[in-house]
Parts: sequence; structure tokens; C-alpha cells
Amino acid sequence: MPAQPTGPTPTRFAFLGPEGTFTEAALRSLGPPSEGGSVPAASVPAALAMARSGEVDAAFVPLENSVEGSVSPTIDGLAGGEPLVITREAFLEVDFVLGVRPGAGLADVARLGSHPHALAQTRGWVAQHLPDAEVLPAASTADAARLVAEGALDGAVCPEFAAQRYGLEVAAARLADTPGAVTRFVQVERPGRLPAPTGADKTTLTCFVADRTGALLDLLTEFASRGISLTRLESRPTRERLGVYSFSVDCEGHVADRRVGDALVALHRLCDEVRFHGSYPRADGRAAAAVPERFADTAFGTAEGWLARLRQGAAG
Amino acid sequence: MPAQPTGPTPTRFAFLGPEGTFTEAALRSLGPPSEGGSVPAASVPAALAMARSGEVDAAFVPLENSVEGSVSPTIDGLAGGEPLVITREAFLEVDFVLGVRPGAGLADVARLGSHPHALAQTRGWVAQHLPDAEVLPAASTADAARLVAEGALDGAVCPEFAAQRYGLEVAAARLADTPGAVTRFVQVERPGRLPAPTGADKTTLTCFVADRTGALLDLLTEFASRGISLTRLESRPTRERLGVYSFSVDCEGHVADRRVGDALVALHRLCDEVRFHGSYPRADGRAAAAVPERFADTAFGTAEGWLARLRQGAAG
Amino acid sequence: MPAQPTGPTPTRFAFLGPEGTFTEAALRSLGPPSEGGSVPAASVPAALAMARSGEVDAAFVPLENSVEGSVSPTIDGLAGGEPLVITREAFLEVDFVLGVRPGAGLADVARLGSHPHALAQTRGWVAQHLPDAEVLPAASTADAARLVAEGALDGAVCPEFAAQRYGLEVAAARLADTPGAVTRFVQVERPGRLPAPTGADKTTLTCFVADRTGALLDLLTEFASRGISLTRLESRPTRERLGVYSFSVDCEGHVADRRVGDALVALHRLCDEVRFHGSYPRADGRAAAAVPERFADTAFGTAEGWLARLRQGAAG
Amino acid sequence: MPAQPTGPTPTRFAFLGPEGTFTEAALRSLGPPSEGGSVPAASVPAALAMARSGEVDAAFVPLENSVEGSVSPTIDGLAGGEPLVITREAFLEVDFVLGVRPGAGLADVARLGSHPHALAQTRGWVAQHLPDAEVLPAASTADAARLVAEGALDGAVCPEFAAQRYGLEVAAARLADTPGAVTRFVQVERPGRLPAPTGADKTTLTCFVADRTGALLDLLTEFASRGISLTRLESRPTRERLGVYSFSVDCEGHVADRRVGDALVALHRLCDEVRFHGSYPRADGRAAAAVPERFADTAFGTAEGWLARLRQGAAG
Repeated sequence: MPAQPTGPTPTRFAFLGPEGTFTEAALRSLGPPSEGGSVPAASVPAALAMARSGEVDAAFVPLENSVEGSVSPTIDGLAGGEPLVITREAFLEVDFVLGVRPGAGLADVARLGSHPHALAQTRGWVAQHLPDAEVLPAASTADAARLVAEGALDGAVCPEFAAQRYGLEVAAARLADTPGAVTRFVQVERPGRLPAPTGADKTTLTCFVADRTGALLDLLTEFASRGISLTRLESRPTRERLGVYSFSVDCEGHVADRRVGDALVALHRLCDEVRFHGSYPRADGRAAAAVPERFADTAFGTAEGWLARLRQGAAG
Repeated sequence: MPAQPTGPTPTRFAFLGPEGTFTEAALRSLGPPSEGGSVPAASVPAALAMARSGEVDAAFVPLENSVEGSVSPTIDGLAGGEPLVITREAFLEVDFVLGVRPGAGLADVARLGSHPHALAQTRGWVAQHLPDAEVLPAASTADAARLVAEGALDGAVCPEFAAQRYGLEVAAARLADTPGAVTRFVQVERPGRLPAPTGADKTTLTCFVADRTGALLDLLTEFASRGISLTRLESRPTRERLGVYSFSVDCEGHVADRRVGDALVALHRLCDEVRFHGSYPRADGRAAAAVPERFADTAFGTAEGWLARLRQGAAG
Repeated sequence: MPAQPTGPTPTRFAFLGPEGTFTEAALRSLGPPSEGGSVPAASVPAALAMARSGEVDAAFVPLENSVEGSVSPTIDGLAGGEPLVITREAFLEVDFVLGVRPGAGLADVARLGSHPHALAQTRGWVAQHLPDAEVLPAASTADAARLVAEGALDGAVCPEFAAQRYGLEVAAARLADTPGAVTRFVQVERPGRLPAPTGADKTTLTCFVADRTGALLDLLTEFASRGISLTRLESRPTRERLGVYSFSVDCEGHVADRRVGDALVALHRLCDEVRFHGSYPRADGRAAAAVPERFADTAFGTAEGWLARLRQGAAG
Repeated sequence: MPAQPTGPTPTRFAFLGPEGTFTEAALRSLGPPSEGGSVPAASVPAALAMARSGEVDAAFVPLENSVEGSVSPTIDGLAGGEPLVITREAFLEVDFVLGVRPGAGLADVARLGSHPHALAQTRGWVAQHLPDAEVLPAASTADAARLVAEGALDGAVCPEFAAQRYGLEVAAARLADTPGAVTRFVQVERPGRLPAPTGADKTTLTCFVADRTGALLDLLTEFASRGISLTRLESRPTRERLGVYSFSVDCEGHVADRRVGDALVALHRLCDEVRFHGSYPRADGRAAAAVPERFADTAFGTAEGWLARLRQGAAG
């Protein structure tokens, strides 16, 4: 295995904006702001385009279960277009606060705003605590917070992070009707840098296969027969290619691991196309399962040494 | 096979509202309004709750790729809670028009509104044709149309159906930056009625399995070994049950088909839990693949007759 | 499950003869001679023919690792021709003694005889202890013993059972160069009687499948996906059917077990032909592995009840 | 792929004797006698031992369906002990003639001899045409021919080749009750020489796996997922290792083929032990199926190049 390709750590970021979104909150949770700064993007495709063009070093976008940006643009944005790779993931519990201007309280909230999805997820709380408020849509939860600060609204259903950013006070917290939702965010970059294996990594792929019974089974067999667990799997229709399905997959392990590399080679032979979207440390707080001996790098090395001897006529 | 359970066809519907949404457009595309009428629901969970409570006979909601309501609430709403079954599906091409008051034109659109996701999907068109318009979020595309009719906005990015409903004129059409998106909608009811098999059906399930390498492979093997193609597959984390994954699956065939019934029995043994979400005619315009002889009902009947004879001591 | 088909226990047997063979020894090991008596057959096909014709109630023949009769005639004799089912199996350690006339010893053995295979398996012992003896082939080990009793030979390499039967003394025992060989014998009958399940049973089948990559994998999947272990598997070319392979299989479990019955139904659909060769108590001294809950009869019953409810429109 | 290891072609052979056996006939069918000559061995183990010790360059022995030597000693002889590899295979139709002394006819055959298995396979013919002959066992079919030449017998059921070798005349041919049997023979050598791939090759292995449901399935998956057909498969109990099964396997392809090498690496990881018994041209007269593109060497090369680029941080 050659040395891991390294490169400068990204310093300029685009995130799904505007300022104050859960996405920015997740980005901030990873450490202090980088010197290059971070800029809000108007949409996931816009953030990805900024990363592709080099306008920023990396885009930071939601991948699963987001409130404001649905998942599809990220998954589809990776599956198509110029290659991008994931270099980091982050998880953030998504809950809402009621942000009001300093000194105000619940009784002062005549006009309440937020992104329609956030309003949908806090409908019960609002009906109980603010039954008489006028409920208004906003372009994002963060935008609602900004509108409160500017006086156009009296209350915002928003991330605590947005309330802080726009100088609001938290009049109430834990507004989600179903608490505990966690959103997963990823940092994506142009190819070139590959995070070093940590022993607890994930790899993300898109596999395109012809539409036949058993194609998915064949595909999954290549993971299972190498002891690789999948942590996410979604079939997605491909609009452009008739009769072709795509599977968006997260699996355990790093492309530098022999078992993952071996599976990739098999998938490359099996599929119409495989797109590699990076290997990166997992951040879901789950310990990676111990890799059974027969799937460890040494097992591959031993087996390949044996094969090489057989091909030279030795007994093995 | 006993006679198919039948019951009264639903006449009262709840749909993901408000009036004029793509969801209502899809519902209307299935036929003239029913006598019981249809009422808008404020959210997918609200629509499902109305079906569960008996307030309506059926709910009509998006299942894949929707603009206004993300998929998750429908899938999660089926997977948990009181049982509901899908009895019908519909597909609708999702594209946007610019709705304006009669007599108005592009030049009159100073204030443009829509659901944030619809605005995101038409950003290119808007930047080119209405660069100076103030862009405002609305709770839904239909709500934007209503606000235009009421004079609060000058233009709405909305379904053509919404423009018609609110008496608007179409000042421009095909606004989507990436045209061709199709959304899939489903009609769900309380269990009791099972649409008769048509020879081109789909069955929807949620399977809960323990988190181990190979669990998904085992699950898919039960479909593949009976010649059943999957048309959609998504892994979803289960928030409540640690270490348990759920798979939301659409497959070809009807629960009344022997191969599908046989697969369900196997899945029931294999999985922690299987939830059945209905069998219904497929409406995706794709012909069902011919079922190979060895997966046909007669093959099951013949084989079971043979087994019965063996168990009675015959040679078979 | 209907009552097990029963019938009169066989009383008249044909065994691979002549008298004194390992086969007769194995038959005797199962209990005292039956009233109907047992007759030697000249060959495995002859013994099977006697069972088929009704001349005897059952044939007793070697199935694996025999010295005097190779396995193939038994396996091929079951796979083709009129149906026969196995109703019992027995295992016997195969070792040889040196049988001599009473009063004689090693020094008296000038002419030593046995079946060529038995001579091959004791070559080392003979070379060491009887280097000067003339070694002569016999039609069977038992025939060699008979020839010693008649004075035509001085020593026979034969089963201890044959020495007893022909009134010989054992001049030496444990002659096999590689001790510990065990031969498996089976009792076969015309169909009609099916031994009751004991919880530790075996089932024997021949499966004919078209010659394509993956056919065997599909076949084995039907066993593995129902938790059924195979205890023997042999591919055999089929002479008569071009491009068709047959697999002779022993698996754990009884045709009356749900999981075995379910697998048989699947195999019947999958294969060109499946021949059932009986379910019978295993006699290999190995405890049957506990059947995991999801493969137990109750799991099938529960699952089928659930399916029946689904098909009637219930929620399951 | 390095150049194929080559070495001197064997010139000294041991074959399963004595002179005149089907085995010698098969050896002769491959070409004129080599200069080093060929010597009969008393048994399959003896022939293998001569190859192992270097007394001869190669042993020539039956592997499937032999009359005189059962298959087991060859398969077991390869599976255990010092490594040996197969370098050539040959097929011979096994049928019998009646060998008599020149000038004699059927009426002169008072004493008829052969190996017991050959006598069993011609019982019908003998009963019809020589009902009064005394039937005597011989150590081999060839030995029976020799005894006829020496006058100790009057007729031998033997290969035509044996009749020629011992100067007998063929009084009748095609004696087998079930004609058409073909026996497969193999040439085995000490490792060191590996026949060059021809595009229509076979590879022989013994795989040892722990006794668990699914182990065999896993094993076969490694072949099937690489498009490799098996041409022979036998499970064999391992006497020495409790709870371990061995599978004796012939598959299509050559160890130098990428797909075969890749499968071997996987098997090496999967199995307790894999023994390689050689790759050699197939001689069964069946054309090798065309290798689908995704299993061809170029598909492996392309995929591995892609993986290497990924690991260096490229987009692939």
C-alpha cells in the first residue's frame, strides 16, 4: 500500500445556507472557523458547484434526514457530474427552539415563521403553546431568525445556533413533536486527498446496474462475502439511462483496506459503472465491529502470496 | 385462493394540501371527484391520521421524489403506527408554471413566491427571466397561487393545476431547471380491502432485521430465489430499536401470487418483523416481466401436491 | 400434518452377499434376524431389483465407502428406475481379521485370499506378516472365508463376522493399513412406509439440474436459507441427459418437518426433476443440531397464518 | 503474469497395473510409449507413492468411475500427503471383451475369470451366453487375461487392450450390461511444472471447511460470483479432523486465469485449508463456455487499475 495521498486541508467552505442553518451548526461543531472562512450557498447543488469550480475547497451539505434540504440533491449531486469525494461526516441532533427578540416572551409572538418542513415538525407544540399566532413560511429556519431580528416576525422556529447568530433569545426549547432526530452532514471535495484509514471508516459509492432480478443480490454478495457491512442503501431510478438502476451505498471500511479494495474490484467488473465517493472516518459514535481474521489485510496478503507461489509451480 | 376481500371503494379522501398541490393534481388525474369529496390535510402525518381515524376513507400522499412533502413522513408513517395499506399508486410529472393574475404578464411580477424547494428547483429560470423580482417563501406552491389570486404576491411558481384552481393565467411554463421529474403518489387506507391481482402489481413492505452482515443479503435472497424483482429499496435506521435496521421495499407481484406469498412467509420467519403495506396495480407504465414457469402459481401448486404425496408415503 | 403413513415392518431382506460380508454384518448389528429371513444378492443392482419386484421387503446395501461394492451402484440404482426409499441407515467400522481354520496359525497360511480391494487395503500388513504367502483374489471377503473353510485357501482377509459365520478362527485382527474406516449402509424399500420423525433424521434426494453456472448455488441456497445442513453431496454426470447434472444429497431433517417440506417444494420448482429417496432416523451417532427458532415448524405455522390473514385483507 | 513454469515432460510413468488394465489403455491412448517407459503399480496409493518418491516422473491413475480401482484412493491420495498436481487428464470408454486363446471360441470357455466388479457389470451377458461357465475372481481384468494366456482360465472379461497385450483373441465384444461408461484418468506429478493455459482448462482443488450450515454455500459463491462452473463436486468426511468437511472440486479455468486466481485467493481466506491439485487442459471433448466479458482477464486488469488510481486519490 503506497502512502496515503495527502493534500492541504480545506480552509474555504461553502455550506447550505443561509447563515444559521443546521448545516452551519454542524460545520461549527467540528471545530473553530477556519481561516479561509465559510460562505453560505443558496442550495445543495450550488454548494457542490462551488466545490467543483474551486471557488471553495469543500462543500458542507446534509446527506440524510435534513429538515431544510432534502437528501436527494446531495445523493444525486454526487452520483452525477464531475467527481467529488466525501472526506468527513458529522452528525447533529436536530431540534428546534423558539427564537424571540431579547426581552420578549411567548405572549409577544403574534407572527411566527420558519421553513415549512420545520413548521410541520413542530405543529403540535405550536398548536398548544401559540394557538393564536399567525404562522408564516420562511425560506429557511435561519431566515426566519433573521426576520425576527429585523422585526418582520416575532418568533422563529429555528436551530439554537440560528438564534445565537441573530442575537435572539430562546423563549422555549425542544419544540420537535418527535424528538431525537439526527441529521448526517458530509464534507465533499474535489478528488486528490484521501483521509488516512483510522480503523473505523466508511466508504460511499454509487453503483449502476442493469435492471434484472438478482443484480442487487449479486452486488450485495460482493460485500457480504468479504464481511463488509452496509450502513445505508438506497435504490434510485436513473432518469437518463432506461432500464438501469443505481444504488447509493455506504459501507464500513476504507478503500485502503484490502477487503474493501477487493470488493471494489469485483463491483467494477459486475456493474455498469461504479462511482467512488470517498473513504473517511465514521462519526456516528458506533465502534466498528472487529474485522474477522479471514477478512483482515493479512489474510489477503497471505492468500495472494500463496497464489503467486502456485502460479510459479510450487505446491503452495 | 379464497375470493379477494372486497369492500366499498373509498369516496372521502384526505390529500396533502392545501388545495392545488401536486398531490391534489395527481388525485384528480385518477378520475372525476368522488361524491364523498376530498379534503386537504396540513401534512402527510395529518393525512394519514385522518385515514386511521376513519375521518376519511383514504389518504392520498406522495411517496417518492415530491417537491413539497419529503418522502420520509410517508414511509415512516406507514412503517409505524396503526396499519395502513396502499391500494393505488399514481405518477405525475412534476413541472412548474408561472401563475399570474388574468391579464398580467412577466413584467408585472414584482413579488414572486413559492415553496422553498420549488424555488430551489426553478432558480435558474427565475434568475434569467425575473432577475429583479422579490422572491418570497410560501408554505406550499398552492399557497403561493392563492396569495397571487388575493393580491399578496404577483407571481407563483406552482403546478398548472394550482393556477387553474385559483383562477390564474399561465405566464410561462416548464420552469424546472432540470425537467422530467416524476413524483409517485399512493392512496392508503385502513386494512380490509385488497385490490384484485391484475398481473401487473406491486407489493410494499417494511422489513425489520437485526444489524448483522448478511441480514440484507438473506432478505434479498428470499425475493431473488422466487424470481421477484424489487422496484425500490431503502435502508432506514430505526430510531427506537437499537441495532435494528428497517428496509422499505417495493416488489413486483401481488400477495395473492404464490411466489409473493411464499416470499412473505420466508420473510416473516427471517425478520424481526414484517409489515405489509398492500398489493395494488402498478401504474408506472412499465409492463410486468413475464413470470418464468418455475415461479408461476402452477409450479407452486404442482410442487405442493408432490410434497403432499411424499408425506403420505407415495413415491411422488 | 396427517398421521405418518405406516405399514408392515420388513421381514424379508436381500443383502449384498454372499453370506458373511460387511453388509450382512451391518444388517445383523441392527437386531436379531427377522422371521422372514435374509438372502444374499449377487450385487447391489440385484438386491435393489429384488426389493423392486417384491421378492423381498427390503434391500440392505452399502451407500458410502464400502470395500466390496463401490458406492456408485447404490446411488445410481436409487437415482434411476422404479422408486425406492431409504427407511434405515447403519454404520459399521470396517476392519479385517485373518481367518484361518481352527487350530491353524499364521505359519500355516500358504495361500491367502480376499476381494482385491480388501487385499489392497491390507497390503502393508500382509507384506510384513505373510511375505511368502501366495495372494489370491476372491469374489468377496466372505467368499474367501468360505474357501478357507473348504480348504481351498489357508487364510482369508475378511470381516470378523465372516470368520464366525464360516467357523474360522481369528489368527490376527486389525489388519487394515489405515484403520478407522466406517462404511454406511442403507435399507431401501418400495415407497409406502415413512419412518416417523425422531428429531434427528436425514433425508436423501437426487436433484437433476441443467448445466449452468449458478444452478448448484441456487439449489444449495434453498437448503441454507431454511437452515438445513447437508451431510453428503455428490455431483454425478447423467449419462442419458446431455447437459444435465445430478446431485445426490443427504440433508438433515425429515420430509414431515416444515422446513424440509418447504425446501422440497422450492427444489421441485427449481430443478428439472427431484427424486425423493426417503426420510429416516440418522444413525451416525451425531446429535442433530438444535433447529433455530426461525426454522422450526411453529415459525412456519405462524408465518402462514399471518399470510392467510393478509390475503383476507387483515393487517396481519 | 510471469512466464508459465515449465520443466521436463515426464518420461517415466507408473500406472495402476497390472499390464493390460484400462488405466494402461488410457495411458497408451495419449501417444506412443515414452522412452523412460512405464511400470505397473500394485495400487493407486502405490502409484502415487512412486510419483512422490521420484521413482517415476508421473503416476497415471483413474479418478472417476473406474472398474478396477475405486475413485476414493485417488481423491484421498491427492487430498492428503505430500503435494501432487494433475498435469493431464484422459477419458476412455470402458467396455469389455471376452478374451480367449487363439483359435478358441465361446464353447471352449469352461472357466471364466475377471475382477469382481467387471464380472458384476457383465453378469447379464455371461448368464445368457456362458450360463454353464465356472466364474472365478481375478485380481484385475488384466490378470484374468494373463491367466487365460497361461491356461489357468479359458476366458477373461477384460479390456480389448488386455486381450491384445496377452495375445488373446476377442471372442465377443461389448459385454457390459449397461454400455457407454466412461472412466476419467489423470496424470499426477510432483509440483513444479504447470501446463500452459489453453483456453479450455480445468483446475482441481480440495477445500476443507468447518461444519456449519452455509459453509458450502459460501464456498460455491466464490466460484459462481466469478462465473466459474464446477464440473465435479464431492463432499467427503475428513476422518482426522472432527467437524471438518472436505470438498473435492473440479472447476473450469486455469490458475493463471485472473478469475480462477481471484477465486483461489477468496477460498484461501474462507477455508480452513485449500489444496491445489493442478490446472490442465480439459480432455472431455466439451468446448469451454465463452467467458463473459466481466469475468475475463481484461476486466480484472481494468478494475485493478481503477482501484490503484482511487487509492492515490484520483477520481477513478
